[in-house]
Amino acid sequence: MAFLSGLSAFPITPINRDGRIDTKALRKLIKRLCAAKVDSIGLLGSTGCYMYLSRGERRRVLTTALGEAGGRAPIVVGVGALRTDEAVRLARDAKAIGAAAGLLAAVSYTPLTDDEVFEHFSVVARESGLPIVIYDNPATTHFHFTPALVGRLVKVPGIVAIKNPTGKSDAIESHLAEQRSIVPEGFSIGYSGDWNAAEAMIAGADTWYSVLGGILPEVCVKIVRASQAGDATEARRLDAALTPIWDLFKQVSSLRTVYALAELLDICRAEPPRPIMPLPAAAKQQVAAALARLPSGTGS
Amino acid sequence: MAFLSGLSAFPITPINRDGRIDTKALRKLIKRLCAAKVDSIGLLGSTGCYMYLSRGERRRVLTTALGEAGGRAPIVVGVGALRTDEAVRLARDAKAIGAAAGLLAAVSYTPLTDDEVFEHFSVVARESGLPIVIYDNPATTHFHFTPALVGRLVKVPGIVAIKNPTGKSDAIESHLAEQRSIVPEGFSIGYSGDWNAAEAMIAGADTWYSVLGGILPEVCVKIVRASQAGDATEARRLDAALTPIWDLFKQVSSLRTVYALAELLDICRAEPPRPIMPLPAAAKQQVAAALARLPSGTGS
Repeated sequence: MAFLSGLSAFPITPINRDGRIDTKALRKLIKRLCAAKVDSIGLLGSTGCYMYLSRGERRRVLTTALGEAGGRAPIVVGVGALRTDEAVRLARDAKAIGAAAGLLAAVSYTPLTDDEVFEHFSVVARESGLPIVIYDNPATTHFHFTPALVGRLVKVPGIVAIKNPTGKSDAIESHLAEQRSIVPEGFSIGYSGDWNAAEAMIAGADTWYSVLGGILPEVCVKIVRASQAGDATEARRLDAALTPIWDLFKQVSSLRTVYALAELLDICRAEPPRPIMPLPAAAKQQVAAALARLPSGTGS
Repeated sequence: MAFLSGLSAFPITPINRDGRIDTKALRKLIKRLCAAKVDSIGLLGSTGCYMYLSRGERRRVLTTALGEAGGRAPIVVGVGALRTDEAVRLARDAKAIGAAAGLLAAVSYTPLTDDEVFEHFSVVARESGLPIVIYDNPATTHFHFTPALVGRLVKVPGIVAIKNPTGKSDAIESHLAEQRSIVPEGFSIGYSGDWNAAEAMIAGADTWYSVLGGILPEVCVKIVRASQAGDATEARRLDAALTPIWDLFKQVSSLRTVYALAELLDICRAEPPRPIMPLPAAAKQQVAAALARLPSGTGS
């Protein structure tokens, strides 16, 4: 599972004003990620607004991204859906098109029980044959994975990795040790929550599932490489320089911030699907100011 | 808005083992509601699993229900969706097919801001022309409507009613008085949370949006009529007899309980869409026991 280690970079999914996937802008984003040598691309994650896209749109996004990546970076793709049968169809599509793995979140409307989530994940893994990453994202799904449920899921054939959320950064080390004790050898443990990711990687996590990595991949790759080399001082120095960005992620959300960054970096002028709105002008100016304050080279 | 008062009964949406809408069972459910003289039918609410059904399936459900109701009860139908453009399409469909109003929830994946929800509701009301009921259901959407946001929304043309959740029953009277002070004359205020609904109706709410009303409409109609006639004692007596059912709603969810009730009452043998699972056998026995304990006539 070498592709489920290091930096997994999550790009936005650019959509035109007429509501169609902007494949040209998407190719630009993928090209940047490959050039920066990210370890994998987290396509159609929450940052890629997968839950707002149809099955056909998701197929188009994956086909376009795989075509542009051309084997330079494996693609892990969101296959979550409210219904189990739909998630199975999405995972089969992903496998047929060539994704390396599927990100599966416990998307819910009716609150789900642990047994329901266990069945959902088991059926998708079994019926698709696609390697599955447990996508634990309580901020969007409002489902909370207990260690007991994770312990059951990691024994299911085909479930190969977990993307954990992070809360307070000082809890990561103990969380990682606890989770490492319940997963099989070779199971990949990763974290999201960009502002805590440097500490997670320093603590020995396998993967940083990164929102900023989808738009500013170079600095995120540097943080990961420093962590992997055991140079915590350098990783923390690079991370500290990103504090203005992390503050915006916390204040106005990482999703809305990276849409603004894509525009400021002149990559594309996309907006998230409504009802999600782009940042108002004042907040966009804050993003521009944060970008200007980054050390030279970081924001290119 | 006479149809947005009294009992709004929310049936399940029966689905066959092969995944298709069971229109025969749906007609049976609608027939029972009309025979019990409910004031409106809350089709494709959370109990009707609207978020798990496609646009085509939702059209089919509404067409079938309207055909069976034949004008005997107006139909209020769920038009919620993650995307604003999809909610507009669903609301237009509902208007074209003949629904009296649309239930619109703040369905979210990416957490939404107040401004985003305001825009979402305004656009759906304006572009569909369908009267809109604000469907405040934080247990499923995880969005919380503040009094300030409700105050903005009730001024939007075409937004005609609100379905509030209930927390502790002793807070309903003050909540109702506060909300009444910010809504225009004639705006309908209703409550869900069946175990608190008798108190809400006694306190002067316009509508009880009822899960149990979708499967045992007669007793719910009686509670509403007693409340409307000012007979709080009789309303509370009838409500108290339903305590075993309310306990199950709280323990194993109202949705899963009414699926079991539909089977026990020999109306249909449907299951909710996966990942939602039917109750395990032991819990079904509890539902059967609760049904058996109801006063004669209630559970027919």
